[in-house]
Amino acid sequence: MIPMNDIQTLDHIEELFPNDFTEEQIAKAKTLFYKKISIAAHQFYGGKMQTLPKAPIYGFNWFNVWYTPGVSAVSTTIRDDNDRSFELSNRSNLVAVVSDSTRVLGDGDCTPPGGLGVMEGKAMLMKYLGGVDSVPLCIDSRDENGEHQADKLIEFVKMVQHSFGAVNLEDISQPNCYRVLDTLREACDIPVWHDDAQGTACVTLAGLINALKITGKKMSDIKAVLYGAGAANTTIARLMITDGVKPENIIIFDTKGTLHSGRTQYREDKRFYRKWELCLSTNPQHIETHEEAFKDADVLIALSKPGPDTIKPEWISLMADKSIVFVCANPVPEIYPYKAKEAGAYIVATGRGDFPNQVNNSVCFPSILKGTLLVSARKITDSMAIRAAHSIADFAERQGLSTEHIMPTMMDSDLFPTVAADVAMQAIHDGVARKTRTWQEVYDIAKHDIDETHTLARLFEQQGFIQEFPEEEIRRIVREACEAVRS
Amino acid sequence: MIPMNDIQTLDHIEELFPNDFTEEQIAKAKTLFYKKISIAAHQFYGGKMQTLPKAPIYGFNWFNVWYTPGVSAVSTTIRDDNDRSFELSNRSNLVAVVSDSTRVLGDGDCTPPGGLGVMEGKAMLMKYLGGVDSVPLCIDSRDENGEHQADKLIEFVKMVQHSFGAVNLEDISQPNCYRVLDTLREACDIPVWHDDAQGTACVTLAGLINALKITGKKMSDIKAVLYGAGAANTTIARLMITDGVKPENIIIFDTKGTLHSGRTQYREDKRFYRKWELCLSTNPQHIETHEEAFKDADVLIALSKPGPDTIKPEWISLMADKSIVFVCANPVPEIYPYKAKEAGAYIVATGRGDFPNQVNNSVCFPSILKGTLLVSARKITDSMAIRAAHSIADFAERQGLSTEHIMPTMMDSDLFPTVAADVAMQAIHDGVARKTRTWQEVYDIAKHDIDETHTLARLFEQQGFIQEFPEEEIRRIVREACEAVRS
Repeated sequence: MIPMNDIQTLDHIEELFPNDFTEEQIAKAKTLFYKKISIAAHQFYGGKMQTLPKAPIYGFNWFNVWYTPGVSAVSTTIRDDNDRSFELSNRSNLVAVVSDSTRVLGDGDCTPPGGLGVMEGKAMLMKYLGGVDSVPLCIDSRDENGEHQADKLIEFVKMVQHSFGAVNLEDISQPNCYRVLDTLREACDIPVWHDDAQGTACVTLAGLINALKITGKKMSDIKAVLYGAGAANTTIARLMITDGVKPENIIIFDTKGTLHSGRTQYREDKRFYRKWELCLSTNPQHIETHEEAFKDADVLIALSKPGPDTIKPEWISLMADKSIVFVCANPVPEIYPYKAKEAGAYIVATGRGDFPNQVNNSVCFPSILKGTLLVSARKITDSMAIRAAHSIADFAERQGLSTEHIMPTMMDSDLFPTVAADVAMQAIHDGVARKTRTWQEVYDIAKHDIDETHTLARLFEQQGFIQEFPEEEIRRIVREACEAVRS
Repeated sequence: MIPMNDIQTLDHIEELFPNDFTEEQIAKAKTLFYKKISIAAHQFYGGKMQTLPKAPIYGFNWFNVWYTPGVSAVSTTIRDDNDRSFELSNRSNLVAVVSDSTRVLGDGDCTPPGGLGVMEGKAMLMKYLGGVDSVPLCIDSRDENGEHQADKLIEFVKMVQHSFGAVNLEDISQPNCYRVLDTLREACDIPVWHDDAQGTACVTLAGLINALKITGKKMSDIKAVLYGAGAANTTIARLMITDGVKPENIIIFDTKGTLHSGRTQYREDKRFYRKWELCLSTNPQHIETHEEAFKDADVLIALSKPGPDTIKPEWISLMADKSIVFVCANPVPEIYPYKAKEAGAYIVATGRGDFPNQVNNSVCFPSILKGTLLVSARKITDSMAIRAAHSIADFAERQGLSTEHIMPTMMDSDLFPTVAADVAMQAIHDGVARKTRTWQEVYDIAKHDIDETHTLARLFEQQGFIQEFPEEEIRRIVREACEAVRS
């Protein structure tokens, strides 16, 4: 009999599965279990985030301070100097998580409210890992014909920006996502972060930095294949190049082949200008085949379609000695790590938490945003993202690097204030900070806010402010999931 | 020496003022004190609301439930039936407080971020009094020429509606506010509430209902003068008429005179269609002078410009026996209550908490929204607002009515779940509820949510999650305010 606590943490769910389940059945049952309990738990709690005061109400007279008549002075002070709003309102610790729900995780267009569960999840991670408050805004960007319009999304964010310290764009489909991000980065006076692109790029770069340390290779020397040319991989290419990789040593595949200056459809269709830039700068030899591209490549970064047979073992075999393989499609990597290793890969990273070296945005966005907010930055520059990548990499290095450990995890709670402080210093250095703070100040505030969230979450659970999720319900859902897998 | 606690509750601030202060100096010092401490306290806490989990994180595996992979089932379930978002996300207890900051309390256009302090205050009241989560959204509705466009505001709310259970419009200037509200009430599939108009109308109607009980007069018999024809008073006129007052017995003044069918500029300027409706239905005799209008009037409802000399005592003297006078301009009523009484008023109500009979939106909007959300209503109908008014009036009646007590206050915490339950029942009756609940269910949930907010707020203060606001700072600000008044 497993003690109740172990059931509720979900740490030992597999032990409740039938003994005769194969590895594949276990994997299927686990995914199905998480889906079923997700519906049950979201319904049980009616969502997962709430608002609460962070300032005292010692008596009803305090509403004269927080509301009329006192608050009038706050209104007029901000009116006369808009930047004072960063000191006098929530916005200096508040992020809008904005999505048009057109590419919700792996589920595509989920209609506007369809993204709410994911964006609330993001808000939960943001607070729990980074001590940052946030608001999920899943918006309807469709025109009269039901077409999603980038311009509507852009207009929306421009209108709402004054209520927030930063905007986190999320789950916006291609090609709208490029123009939305690039336009808003210029148009807004607060940082606009596209986590699917920049967050993934930042954390992938972190992994790459450490993999190179282990293999003794250098950014400036490596030859890299990028498999997939979505928002994430095109941004990864840009950050890699900025951090030292020679563009002529990069070959990028999209669904139609490799990018190069002959792919002129991307010159014609202006919405794909980010891809066209890479067509011009990478792959000058116009290499087209997998065999030529993978030959002697040091690095593969795949963010394409779920595997396990998207990347062939024979391509990996062609790679250089001590090859580094990132296969980050979810839920199934483009090739299973054991197969990639059999084919000769030296270090393998995936998007999954149940394999070594998980490349997970959650180790990055809460701290980047926290550091950015703590100096009320106007932008998140590429060099801030690259600084975050090095900070994450250095953190893992201090824990000790190995081929099975190139990345820290969400559970490394000291990671977050450290990265926040590094990012804040870079913001000050880059001249985009409204406010100056020392490294230690940023670290201390971030650490306090994160620790306090953990303490409060535990206190809510222990003192009954959050009702206990029934153990019986967990067991029932496990049974249901197992039965469904068997039938 | 006043004990420290009395300083911090701000209940005895006057006792810290110099003994030789006149009443007028005390009043000025008090207002100035609240403005100064408001700036200091907002800066000390960096705003006043935060986000926190309302669901458990028993371990990091729970992020597989609240986020990927489990949450994917929430996305697809909502995609296939958008109404499921009311069960599976925060939106069933979440209100957007939307303003374009063009008429922030008495301070007019405060630029987009200028409204943040007020809207966060609204969010604080919403949670503390009604157990409702909310998000302040102060938006930029200006076009390229810097003109505020009603259409931009309308488009914004239509885009964001899917993330919320209701929208509370706030502090939007005339004439935009009419069309914004009326368009959105039709266009949105969630309730859109304009608190400055409907909230004020609801709570004024509540006061009127009780004043009539005391004086033994009937809605259907009274003659009423409405002084001021802004969003609030035009809505009050509509609700009064719906609740039984004969339109031909109403005379409405705006800044140019009385409304009647000869005021054809409101027929020409379509933005003022709400005023034009009242031009057609009220004041059929085209009465123009104050003397004729006030002669034998039973009721005066003034929501015009701050006094104390806006309403003349001699007009009040012309009113009928047992006259009812609402003078609700802030911060100074159109005539001081003692002067109105000297002139013959029988019952006087104001917007201020330091006189009897405060007409205060805060006793109404948190409960109306809570009741509405608890049945996932599609609209707030006029009959729901009128039901709320009667519920508020009945609550005060149970406490015992007198000429000095026609209204409950914010401190009557049982008021809120009671009104919520009454409103929810009306929503079900009117066929606008997505969900059916009994009166007792609504009452119990609302009461639980409100009580828990109070408990948590106290716990945050007592256990140091909210830092103590320094007593010394309060004393310093009192001294500063007093010195400023003297000089």
